[in-house]
Amino acid sequence: MADMAARLSGIVGADHLLTGEAIGEDYAHDEALSNDPVKPAYVALPETADQVAQLLKTATELGIPVTARGSGSGLSGAARPREDGLLVSFERMAAILEIDTENHVAVVQPGVSLEDLDGKLAEHGLVYPVYPGELSASIGGNVGTNAGGMRAIKYGVTRNNVLGLEAALATGELIRTGGKFVKASTGYDLTQLIIGSEGTLALVTEAVLKLQPRLPHQGTVLAPFADLDEVARAVPKVVASGLGPLIVEYIDGLTMGAITYRAQLQLGIPDEVKETAHAYLVVQLESRTADRLDEDVAEVGELLSGLGAKDVYVLEGTAAGKLIDAREKAFWAAKEAGADDIIDTVIPRASLPQFMERVRAIAQENNTFVIGCGHAGDGNVHLAVLQKDSEVRERVLHGLFEAGVHLGGAISGEHGIGRKHAERFAALTDPAKVDLMRRIKTAFDPAGVLNPGVLFD
Amino acid sequence: MADMAARLSGIVGADHLLTGEAIGEDYAHDEALSNDPVKPAYVALPETADQVAQLLKTATELGIPVTARGSGSGLSGAARPREDGLLVSFERMAAILEIDTENHVAVVQPGVSLEDLDGKLAEHGLVYPVYPGELSASIGGNVGTNAGGMRAIKYGVTRNNVLGLEAALATGELIRTGGKFVKASTGYDLTQLIIGSEGTLALVTEAVLKLQPRLPHQGTVLAPFADLDEVARAVPKVVASGLGPLIVEYIDGLTMGAITYRAQLQLGIPDEVKETAHAYLVVQLESRTADRLDEDVAEVGELLSGLGAKDVYVLEGTAAGKLIDAREKAFWAAKEAGADDIIDTVIPRASLPQFMERVRAIAQENNTFVIGCGHAGDGNVHLAVLQKDSEVRERVLHGLFEAGVHLGGAISGEHGIGRKHAERFAALTDPAKVDLMRRIKTAFDPAGVLNPGVLFD
Repeated sequence: MADMAARLSGIVGADHLLTGEAIGEDYAHDEALSNDPVKPAYVALPETADQVAQLLKTATELGIPVTARGSGSGLSGAARPREDGLLVSFERMAAILEIDTENHVAVVQPGVSLEDLDGKLAEHGLVYPVYPGELSASIGGNVGTNAGGMRAIKYGVTRNNVLGLEAALATGELIRTGGKFVKASTGYDLTQLIIGSEGTLALVTEAVLKLQPRLPHQGTVLAPFADLDEVARAVPKVVASGLGPLIVEYIDGLTMGAITYRAQLQLGIPDEVKETAHAYLVVQLESRTADRLDEDVAEVGELLSGLGAKDVYVLEGTAAGKLIDAREKAFWAAKEAGADDIIDTVIPRASLPQFMERVRAIAQENNTFVIGCGHAGDGNVHLAVLQKDSEVRERVLHGLFEAGVHLGGAISGEHGIGRKHAERFAALTDPAKVDLMRRIKTAFDPAGVLNPGVLFD
Repeated sequence: MADMAARLSGIVGADHLLTGEAIGEDYAHDEALSNDPVKPAYVALPETADQVAQLLKTATELGIPVTARGSGSGLSGAARPREDGLLVSFERMAAILEIDTENHVAVVQPGVSLEDLDGKLAEHGLVYPVYPGELSASIGGNVGTNAGGMRAIKYGVTRNNVLGLEAALATGELIRTGGKFVKASTGYDLTQLIIGSEGTLALVTEAVLKLQPRLPHQGTVLAPFADLDEVARAVPKVVASGLGPLIVEYIDGLTMGAITYRAQLQLGIPDEVKETAHAYLVVQLESRTADRLDEDVAEVGELLSGLGAKDVYVLEGTAAGKLIDAREKAFWAAKEAGADDIIDTVIPRASLPQFMERVRAIAQENNTFVIGCGHAGDGNVHLAVLQKDSEVRERVLHGLFEAGVHLGGAISGEHGIGRKHAERFAALTDPAKVDLMRRIKTAFDPAGVLNPGVLFD
């Protein structure tokens, strides 16, 4: 134990290896609900990629489980350490190394937050368009879970916007994958394999991000509909229009009430509309010019009216920003409302009504309260489950995931499997695929030290 | 031998297993230059995914090397079979299984050609936007090499537009990866891992493709520049404009002469401009409305004039179509001109002038003729090498690849490593990465029967 600590502090320096009482509470958990905190044996705060590589080499040699931590905003327990393990926190590796305006890429360390990056990019008229709800999230964490968010319908998710990585392997080598280019056909795509692997294959020490021009004008349309069926029918039409929406979200009536109340947001929707509107569609557009934006917003409005919207509200700057912000913070609203768990199953978007019907049935059968909203454009449904009894809750969660998988979906759209869902992942996935993934894991991590218990049961 | 044939024909039926003289010349090669044809021992023409899985199971059991073939239009020899091997041709698995207009996806078998698919999608106002030069290419082949093409700057390459796969493993299981959704964080992304693996990890039996609205209006601007440096400086400005170009190509003066001559294409460029223009930039835009297209085309024209273009030509429909078509067929022009090899190194796009300077130096040192054009928007440079002496040619190719890798690029942007470049791939790639890829290969294909000699030396 003391010997291990000596080895590890030899790598990062005594000041940057924490043990025992020096390890703060924050390191014991991420934001996953109903997942007890666990303090790790060691927390290392490396400063360089070489230090990360040496930490992994040592961990493999000594058989110490290793968990990576960005800003700890994950929702599936993938950053919750092991009691006997080493937590590698990237807080000291948070530099924006380069903003390359010729190739339109940024090179960053994993600890950089989305918020810091966005501030810097704005100065150059550029944007890294991946936009998960939590802007304190780190790029490293985003890569780990393949973070998505509302703008996925236009710009894709993390894996569509990361061009290359530097990563430390469990065996101590540092490799570089991809680069400042958008295409390659030169061997297996290790960048894509590491993205979404939740710290089980390698530890990312640098990322090359694809940037987009920052379009200056944004407009938001809010349309109440009678029910989710109508919303689901409207979505493909909005997408097929070619207007290229930035955001297409649905919010159910109850969630709309909760998030607008929490944000003290008045949207000017009359009570008689609220009473009969059980599902809301939010469409945000962006454009290079104010004129074109106005035309596009008007066109979306007409389109939605023709598709059965009870009314169409064009939200002005502040109200629109607040609504999107409130929607982003739905997780916190759910948490405050006493949610015991949240899930983010993804399904083919046209199956949204069928899925929600199953959700209602499962909730009712189990006397459980389930509310939600979701990325209607991409079928990613966020549900909050309120059920204190852990046995009943397990049954509900299993039922919800099963319903999603049965409709051709997947357990998680953007939160990840983590520790929380490893057992369910094993139960609901083709064993041939799980076995194959385990063999891939072993190809990267022969000693099995990288985040054991995450992804695999 | 007879026993093997009996086993294989037991799976696909005697009519669909070819041996000996029944095997046509076409099955002996793809379109890779300077790569001798090899007739395989067996050609199987399966009709179902189950048959493919059974073929692989049997091949693993008996140790028969297996090569997959789509339409044979590959340029790196990845579809060239082994003399002692089994070629699995997907010509009988060429159905478009579903065009889903709600979820905007198509489900297709691997033998479907881009051309057939495009014809069908046009009826629905949709498009599968990946656009490599050769439209007879099959989707299966596109998945194998992660095919790119001119529209990558707007829509990405194959890996950005394939949402899921059904694939047969070497061990005989059929797995499904991904699905009709654009995001997931549910285990390793096997879809992405199989894309670009050139038949060395699994055989694709079905693909779920992401579709886009088909925008009706396209406009093309051709701008001659003094040299490539000016072109390279203009490209980031065109991209940063937010106009979202569909195509940004550069064509050098010589290649422009060759392809326009071959296509008998008159672009109306005066001789005095031609004499001083050593590099051309082609920008194609698309739009929902004719008015907006006109505005955008005018804006690009002004932008390019301000960036040093000698003139700006807005090409009318036919001329534009012919130029893009001629550019697509540059490979055939190069072949007819006697090219002994072609390469498609990718580099960060801002490094294009430096790269081309190295190219000129290498060509001169080796008394070799090297001409080219390329995807200026994404740094993917296509070069034709005219050098009959295979030893000198090898030296030139190695030098070109080395120059690309040295600038932070990769050996191939879209053609793949195949058989042709396996040795160079091994020589120019970090051994830690090659070893890792070999271990991944083994995780999929323990007996090493899938396309041995491709990718790995």
